[in-house]
Amino acid sequence: MTKVPVAILGGSGYTAAELLKILLRHPGVEIAMITSRQKESIADLHPFLHCRLNMDCEPFDPDHLQRRGVAAVFSCLPHGASSSCIPPLLQRGIRVIDLSADYRLRDPVIYEQWYHEPHQDPHHLAEAVYGLPEIYGERIAQARLVANPGCYPQTAILGLAPLIAAGCIHRTDIIIDSKSGVSGGGRTPKLTFHFPECNESVSAYGIGVHRHTPEIEQVLSDVAGQKVEVIFTPHLIPMDRGILSTIYVTPTRPLEPLELQELYQRYYQRQPFVRLRSRPPATKDTLHSNFLDIYVQAVRGGRLIIVTAEDNLVRGASGVAVQNFNRMFGFEETTALL
Amino acid sequence: MTKVPVAILGGSGYTAAELLKILLRHPGVEIAMITSRQKESIADLHPFLHCRLNMDCEPFDPDHLQRRGVAAVFSCLPHGASSSCIPPLLQRGIRVIDLSADYRLRDPVIYEQWYHEPHQDPHHLAEAVYGLPEIYGERIAQARLVANPGCYPQTAILGLAPLIAAGCIHRTDIIIDSKSGVSGGGRTPKLTFHFPECNESVSAYGIGVHRHTPEIEQVLSDVAGQKVEVIFTPHLIPMDRGILSTIYVTPTRPLEPLELQELYQRYYQRQPFVRLRSRPPATKDTLHSNFLDIYVQAVRGGRLIIVTAEDNLVRGASGVAVQNFNRMFGFEETTALL
Amino acid sequence: MTKVPVAILGGSGYTAAELLKILLRHPGVEIAMITSRQKESIADLHPFLHCRLNMDCEPFDPDHLQRRGVAAVFSCLPHGASSSCIPPLLQRGIRVIDLSADYRLRDPVIYEQWYHEPHQDPHHLAEAVYGLPEIYGERIAQARLVANPGCYPQTAILGLAPLIAAGCIHRTDIIIDSKSGVSGGGRTPKLTFHFPECNESVSAYGIGVHRHTPEIEQVLSDVAGQKVEVIFTPHLIPMDRGILSTIYVTPTRPLEPLELQELYQRYYQRQPFVRLRSRPPATKDTLHSNFLDIYVQAVRGGRLIIVTAEDNLVRGASGVAVQNFNRMFGFEETTALL
Amino acid sequence: MTKVPVAILGGSGYTAAELLKILLRHPGVEIAMITSRQKESIADLHPFLHCRLNMDCEPFDPDHLQRRGVAAVFSCLPHGASSSCIPPLLQRGIRVIDLSADYRLRDPVIYEQWYHEPHQDPHHLAEAVYGLPEIYGERIAQARLVANPGCYPQTAILGLAPLIAAGCIHRTDIIIDSKSGVSGGGRTPKLTFHFPECNESVSAYGIGVHRHTPEIEQVLSDVAGQKVEVIFTPHLIPMDRGILSTIYVTPTRPLEPLELQELYQRYYQRQPFVRLRSRPPATKDTLHSNFLDIYVQAVRGGRLIIVTAEDNLVRGASGVAVQNFNRMFGFEETTALL
Repeated sequence: MTKVPVAILGGSGYTAAELLKILLRHPGVEIAMITSRQKESIADLHPFLHCRLNMDCEPFDPDHLQRRGVAAVFSCLPHGASSSCIPPLLQRGIRVIDLSADYRLRDPVIYEQWYHEPHQDPHHLAEAVYGLPEIYGERIAQARLVANPGCYPQTAILGLAPLIAAGCIHRTDIIIDSKSGVSGGGRTPKLTFHFPECNESVSAYGIGVHRHTPEIEQVLSDVAGQKVEVIFTPHLIPMDRGILSTIYVTPTRPLEPLELQELYQRYYQRQPFVRLRSRPPATKDTLHSNFLDIYVQAVRGGRLIIVTAEDNLVRGASGVAVQNFNRMFGFEETTALL
Repeated sequence: MTKVPVAILGGSGYTAAELLKILLRHPGVEIAMITSRQKESIADLHPFLHCRLNMDCEPFDPDHLQRRGVAAVFSCLPHGASSSCIPPLLQRGIRVIDLSADYRLRDPVIYEQWYHEPHQDPHHLAEAVYGLPEIYGERIAQARLVANPGCYPQTAILGLAPLIAAGCIHRTDIIIDSKSGVSGGGRTPKLTFHFPECNESVSAYGIGVHRHTPEIEQVLSDVAGQKVEVIFTPHLIPMDRGILSTIYVTPTRPLEPLELQELYQRYYQRQPFVRLRSRPPATKDTLHSNFLDIYVQAVRGGRLIIVTAEDNLVRGASGVAVQNFNRMFGFEETTALL
Repeated sequence: MTKVPVAILGGSGYTAAELLKILLRHPGVEIAMITSRQKESIADLHPFLHCRLNMDCEPFDPDHLQRRGVAAVFSCLPHGASSSCIPPLLQRGIRVIDLSADYRLRDPVIYEQWYHEPHQDPHHLAEAVYGLPEIYGERIAQARLVANPGCYPQTAILGLAPLIAAGCIHRTDIIIDSKSGVSGGGRTPKLTFHFPECNESVSAYGIGVHRHTPEIEQVLSDVAGQKVEVIFTPHLIPMDRGILSTIYVTPTRPLEPLELQELYQRYYQRQPFVRLRSRPPATKDTLHSNFLDIYVQAVRGGRLIIVTAEDNLVRGASGVAVQNFNRMFGFEETTALL
Repeated sequence: MTKVPVAILGGSGYTAAELLKILLRHPGVEIAMITSRQKESIADLHPFLHCRLNMDCEPFDPDHLQRRGVAAVFSCLPHGASSSCIPPLLQRGIRVIDLSADYRLRDPVIYEQWYHEPHQDPHHLAEAVYGLPEIYGERIAQARLVANPGCYPQTAILGLAPLIAAGCIHRTDIIIDSKSGVSGGGRTPKLTFHFPECNESVSAYGIGVHRHTPEIEQVLSDVAGQKVEVIFTPHLIPMDRGILSTIYVTPTRPLEPLELQELYQRYYQRQPFVRLRSRPPATKDTLHSNFLDIYVQAVRGGRLIIVTAEDNLVRGASGVAVQNFNRMFGFEETTALL
């Protein structure tokens, strides 16, 4: 098999580490380059890579990437930094999977409203494909620029899509209460993520203003064909990884358990990484895997509770990035992910 | 000060341990007796008590308690066991604070519906006072039998009471999403609470069927003067202690931030253990304390999000039990609790 | 590639779960059978296996295994149970890798001294090969019965072997202070491993009497060609996985840093899973991998401190079991392990 | 009771928070002032203080402290900063308990050797009393300047003192392997203490060079009347609080268990905060308390293993600081500490 030469931008964080772990198992990938401002050996940045990957990080230079024959770039740069590096890559014919939030929102007005600054590269916003394979699978295969989805949004969107698509719930009465491990906050030390602060504690944050809200709404509105609105509240949980979302919705008509079950089964029948569970999942069931688990139950008054679980660094970031890569470069969707 | 001789029934669990820790600081209490089927030294059951409390556990015997002059009993027995021990104590004129769920629901029909067995002592149900001082403070002072409130219900009830009392939210559109540390599950080893199962994981449980649901509804209906219905979903969080409840409600009319704030301040103005916070609380802020913290915020569409936090073993169980004891025996409400 | 049909005995515990995770990635293995007294679907026992392995556990029956053509058995049964199932398998020509402690000690007298009961199958003790590939690699390839090594012993033995082989430390002045995650204690709920007991706490256990002591001494004595004695103290750490061993030894002559380094490099030059580190490793560097990391440093008075780290379920149990399997069945040593 | 007005320097860290928690329970203390460069309300820095302490932090000014009538200062400033603030306080007749390391080592040459910079206030080194009440109790009562002991050293010194005083172990063959919770590293965010880095991991650090080594040796040499040398290796454990030290020593003559036991009992008979345990302690037994637990056991070859446990923020810092304060100002030694 000829291997696809790939580069990773921003090698020092958790999504880059997870991506490298997955790509080292990918038979069709050659890691051609890793960029970082920290010009260290990648194994010094991520000690688990000792004896597995012997490579120094290099400064970002689009010409340099081109000369190395890089065909695909995974950008693990922070929001903002990503959209300043990606245009020159697209110009050179390099396909990009962007793990930052920069190209997820199609509308620059909504971007500015939630990110409080104008978008740096509105030109490519329309072209970017939202990288959720279960929703936009066909378009991802052809995309030059894939906006890899946020960790929280996937748990919300995939938990709700079958109901939204079937038009059987109220589109503006949706509550998403999410619980995430600390790695979702990135690798930069902050008081919030200092061990003695967040260990043995749970708290809500970003109430009413979290930037994943418009991302969830944009995709669900695509699925619905009309505007969907959600209330989204994230919480910080004292664990490394994992997101559990508990979603509360109101059906527009009574739904029998069997009907519910079939609705979900039909929607996800060809999706290798969505698992419909008959009991509420624990995030641990999905740890270090690319699976997203879904459980649905009707409760008093007909309301539905949907519980979804994923590993925020694999399914929520680097795993789905490789799933997108597999679609873009003609590999079996599950390659390196099982 | 003459000391009140108290006994603790069921000394081996976490609520008994926490109670002992608090009572050892109480200037008006003499620990006269601890019962347990495990006839060990209490310090062998709870090693933190070495050199602090030198006492052996004894079998339960109501005559024995009476002969020792016990005036107050804290029952830390499991649900079911409690209601078989309490009647003979009441008969002997001993006042009881029951930390189990046995006397919390006034209606034996509702009890049977949620606990799937008939109540063993329906006779005393009507007499028992629900031990939430912020709601039933006056009655607690006079009570012979106090049903100490559940850990989850307190976070829900105190978060909602001001709005319910003011009649400004829809009484059947209330969602309570709660997150609890593992000690809430008690001290009996089970796979669910085995460290490698629940560590690094979060999960929902008891969806739609958790027994704290009718408890919350009973008290809120008292506050409202009419029927209140809630959706309550508990989650297991990898930490020792702490409950955070995120509550979603819909106002019946627009509420200004200032009005909201005053509503809560007025309702809790004389309550030493309710703190109104201007930022979302972390459970750690309340760790090992009897405080219950409340934060309220309006979000899109006018919906309100209320976040409440407590330590499930102190405020959620043994701390509020001592708060009740203080009211019953004429001590300052905060004695031993600050 | 024709696949080797393998069976796993005792499918409900953590080592079986980890083994299945690894074997599902092994191109040369067919999982033919899983036995357990719990006749459940394996995915109900280990929910991470949903959609990955659809198989029910079956009762143990050696004839049944033979009829299925099973060529290799991994026994994940508890100590004692393993040695009662293995003889009939060997009789039927099935090769066995035993993850229990039953065949690790060659001398039944020493077994009885540390396990306080006579060995059930002394007949096969002499034949069993201790499954530490870095020490007994040649013999493992030919073995019918491999006694997979203990989790702690590997960190002690591999940390000490180069020094012991070179004869440059005092053989009876060796202190091994080990720290282990809770999964090392197995999956059976016990108060010791109940989350609120062991979380936020560290303690020593088995001081002076832990059964891994004679195992460490047997192998190091093999390496030395004469009797080696160690002091071994294990500790329980509030984490799922990982063992860190801090080892204190006294050289018989001064050792220069460079000499030390070369000694270790030479000893492990062909070993793909031993990493010599230039800084003290964290157990997290080895999490979910088959690597064992070693760091050596001379301190005051010439004494040496050796720090070793591994994942107790992979390198410490199921990973090294597959490494042994690879050697026994002619696969590349690293197959399914990178 | 007239209250002693006290000030706390450096109010933003963990030792200050713990100190405030204890002092709020002290009937003989008035918190007159808290200094910090962060001029915030103390309850904003430490949210658990809401409704408990309503006070703003102020800049440090010795005249200001004097005018407020402050009689005692607890310095929670970082190493280095402390010794620049303390001289002007002593000059003004204010007694100081310094929780930093600045005045712990009597010899400025040894200070410079381990801290790699000259001491800023060598003048007061000789006067400072090392604040370990079980060793220097008499002198502490009279001291103007108490150097509060390090968290690790207390576990080492108190575990060894009875044996050292009795002269029955080899004074240069002492190994101290310590395990500490993360709060020991302070409250400043660093990658090492970032939750996803140190959670689910254990590692050794400061091997051979940790600054608590000379502190342990100085005190044990005082006890011995001659030079004592130790090997000290600290480890970082994924928990908030607690230190467990496992200490390995070699007796100079055989010691019977009973003799050992009596040796320790005699040495600590009047010490209210040292508990001799008959089973190995867990750090959790001492959590949030001022107790230091000790367990001793002889193992093979006559070697002794001593296990000690404490809460690093209470007994290891702020609790013992109040114990010292109680001795200095004539309070019962246990005031506010039980």
